[in-house]
Amino acid sequence: MAWQSQFHGGLGDGAALVRRLWGCVKRMDSKMSGEVLMNAGEGGVVHVTLRHAGRLNAMSRTMWRQLRSVFEGIQASSARCVVMAGESGAFCAGGDISEYPGFRFDAAALRDFHENDVWGGLNAMLACDVPIVASISGACMGAGVEIASCCDVRVAGAAARFGAPIAKLGFPMAPREAQLVAAAVGETAARQMLLEAATFTAADMLARGFLSRVVPDDDVPAEALASARRIAALAPGAARMNKQVLRALKTPPALDGKAPAAIEMIVSGPHDPYAYADSAEHREGITAFLAKRPPVF
Amino acid sequence: MAWQSQFHGGLGDGAALVRRLWGCVKRMDSKMSGEVLMNAGEGGVVHVTLRHAGRLNAMSRTMWRQLRSVFEGIQASSARCVVMAGESGAFCAGGDISEYPGFRFDAAALRDFHENDVWGGLNAMLACDVPIVASISGACMGAGVEIASCCDVRVAGAAARFGAPIAKLGFPMAPREAQLVAAAVGETAARQMLLEAATFTAADMLARGFLSRVVPDDDVPAEALASARRIAALAPGAARMNKQVLRALKTPPALDGKAPAAIEMIVSGPHDPYAYADSAEHREGITAFLAKRPPVF
Amino acid sequence: MAWQSQFHGGLGDGAALVRRLWGCVKRMDSKMSGEVLMNAGEGGVVHVTLRHAGRLNAMSRTMWRQLRSVFEGIQASSARCVVMAGESGAFCAGGDISEYPGFRFDAAALRDFHENDVWGGLNAMLACDVPIVASISGACMGAGVEIASCCDVRVAGAAARFGAPIAKLGFPMAPREAQLVAAAVGETAARQMLLEAATFTAADMLARGFLSRVVPDDDVPAEALASARRIAALAPGAARMNKQVLRALKTPPALDGKAPAAIEMIVSGPHDPYAYADSAEHREGITAFLAKRPPVF
Repeated sequence: MAWQSQFHGGLGDGAALVRRLWGCVKRMDSKMSGEVLMNAGEGGVVHVTLRHAGRLNAMSRTMWRQLRSVFEGIQASSARCVVMAGESGAFCAGGDISEYPGFRFDAAALRDFHENDVWGGLNAMLACDVPIVASISGACMGAGVEIASCCDVRVAGAAARFGAPIAKLGFPMAPREAQLVAAAVGETAARQMLLEAATFTAADMLARGFLSRVVPDDDVPAEALASARRIAALAPGAARMNKQVLRALKTPPALDGKAPAAIEMIVSGPHDPYAYADSAEHREGITAFLAKRPPVF
Repeated sequence: MAWQSQFHGGLGDGAALVRRLWGCVKRMDSKMSGEVLMNAGEGGVVHVTLRHAGRLNAMSRTMWRQLRSVFEGIQASSARCVVMAGESGAFCAGGDISEYPGFRFDAAALRDFHENDVWGGLNAMLACDVPIVASISGACMGAGVEIASCCDVRVAGAAARFGAPIAKLGFPMAPREAQLVAAAVGETAARQMLLEAATFTAADMLARGFLSRVVPDDDVPAEALASARRIAALAPGAARMNKQVLRALKTPPALDGKAPAAIEMIVSGPHDPYAYADSAEHREGITAFLAKRPPVF
Repeated sequence: MAWQSQFHGGLGDGAALVRRLWGCVKRMDSKMSGEVLMNAGEGGVVHVTLRHAGRLNAMSRTMWRQLRSVFEGIQASSARCVVMAGESGAFCAGGDISEYPGFRFDAAALRDFHENDVWGGLNAMLACDVPIVASISGACMGAGVEIASCCDVRVAGAAARFGAPIAKLGFPMAPREAQLVAAAVGETAARQMLLEAATFTAADMLARGFLSRVVPDDDVPAEALASARRIAALAPGAARMNKQVLRALKTPPALDGKAPAAIEMIVSGPHDPYAYADSAEHREGITAFLAKRPPVF
């Protein structure tokens, strides 16, 4: 069951939210391609769970769209805190590469995927005023790092692993995602992840300032929930205002179209950042991965 | 004695400074609400000390105003380095909450407090070209973290504690202060402090990149003074120029009023960041604290 | 031999590159003042080596200009990764102070040195889309930290030492260099380096997020090469695009000349950041160093 309908605790308008979200779900076909579960807990804590069985919760397009709907719903609710987790011992191993041949080799389709589906989901998280606690076990790679980067507090198990080894797949990180990840993990780790396909332990990522705390693997769900409950017991309006201010500090003021932010210049400027779609390198990376052979660049 | 009048060492215009500052002091009534002491040491080192007996040097409005006067005076002097400390085993435990019912529940008065008194003091520190060494023992919370964030070098004792648990008091951090603290402690720690009311050890804050060094508690004053003396023996003009450049890099260039910085948009924009003044949540937080009972949000 | 002419591996246009670079070399007289060596390795890895015998590879003006030529050449080539190192057990101990009396005490000449020679070299590194791995042994001070700050991955030996103790020499860090270093080492370490003339161990700089990894001193060349080979085996176009995006995120968009970046305001604004050239403090710092006596500021 993808979108569970019980809402307890401090969610005053939970019932209306559920009706709205349930409508979204009916329009989606998530049977084969994973799903983003939402489940209300006690005291205003909402649980959002990535589930893609057999793929370590890799994000499909459907899941990115569900992620957006879920967080738009949470933003419209009176939820006090979100716990973001993955099912079955992983947080999220990345994107669902099996879908990539269907759209990645066309620049317009590739842009649509990153700017609308992926960024739609991530931006809904970033735009959510409700605090989000990431509960990270196992693989937290690529899309997993991006999703974790949108969380406010990051609790990870000692055995969790982090990285974004997409250079093995023959493509760069999309600009908005690179900005998000570089700010969250720091430039040094971001360059190691992207250029060297380096992976990092939880201890590494604590030292890099990305993780809030590292706990024994078995304790991750309980520690993340404890963090969420602490947050949910504190002043909810103050939390939302703090998140709004920290977000606004990163948003350059509007200038009547005269001063676009650097990221808008990159995404919409004369050098299309998605022009690599049809490159031999990109095709080789994806094709080799799906053929289970090493790529030759 | 709040503003001690002896100036030794490299303070060429120290006598004139003292006369000017002494005039300020006479205009202030600091008997009941703490004080900010200034005392010239040897070799151009100036000692600034927060003192609020029985309140772990919590900052009163009077102290914020004194802080501004003290640092405006230091900036106008030939001081070579400042050691910033608190009295009696604490750095600063936060704001003086006993004063809050007098002004916090009115939006205009609240704005005046944060934009003029608090930011007046912090901005005088940030605008000071003379290097500042924080000597941090014990509690460094809320206003204490803000004051420490305006220092250049931060020396702390192993038992010092850091945080900004104002979510327990029902209010968010004011925008300029949030920008300052998030930049100094990093976004990860800032979100834990603000959303979870988390506190951190000195070892944590060293790892977060906030502290310059952690030393045994008994050694804090001597280590901070040693750092100040090292700084004071080096080229004073170069130090001032380095501080000016690092400050200017954070200051967006003027644009004929066409491109206000994000922080100005937040503070002066259509969504008043102080509109929460009269909220039930804010009243509950302050009231519960003063009544020594847990708040119910 | 300064510019070795053999190119192997994945450097498709290596021969043309070598011809062009060789022309540059003929126009330079680098006999007495150090040199920047370039040597192509296997698989698209290029080795760039700082060599200034007897001066721990301190950067002379000639070397800054060679650094620029080398990286402009690499950018125009099909190189896949650069290993940046110093000869004889040091990375780079700073600038070549013996040259300083010849130009530092005149503001225009000082500006020319920093804005054209030093920044010319550093900016060529920053503008290079080819990933750069720093292989850091021994002294990495001043100019060494600046050069390392332009690298993507930084591998250091346990005994390496880091700092920028130019306050001992009586001058501040030039604005563009200060922006570069503060972003790479963090504000806390930058202020300690510049104001306190503090030096840091490799472990310190790993904790500060500057270093990618610290290895036993004897293993530095092999570990840096292994990192470069990992990078060179991955998708080269993706690497270049990742570097382009991370660079563009730091570059404010053009505004028809209406919104210069803060750094341009500092460098070209009404307060000349090089006006200190003829100051007593500056002369004392340089003069005392060359006379091997302590400066008196």
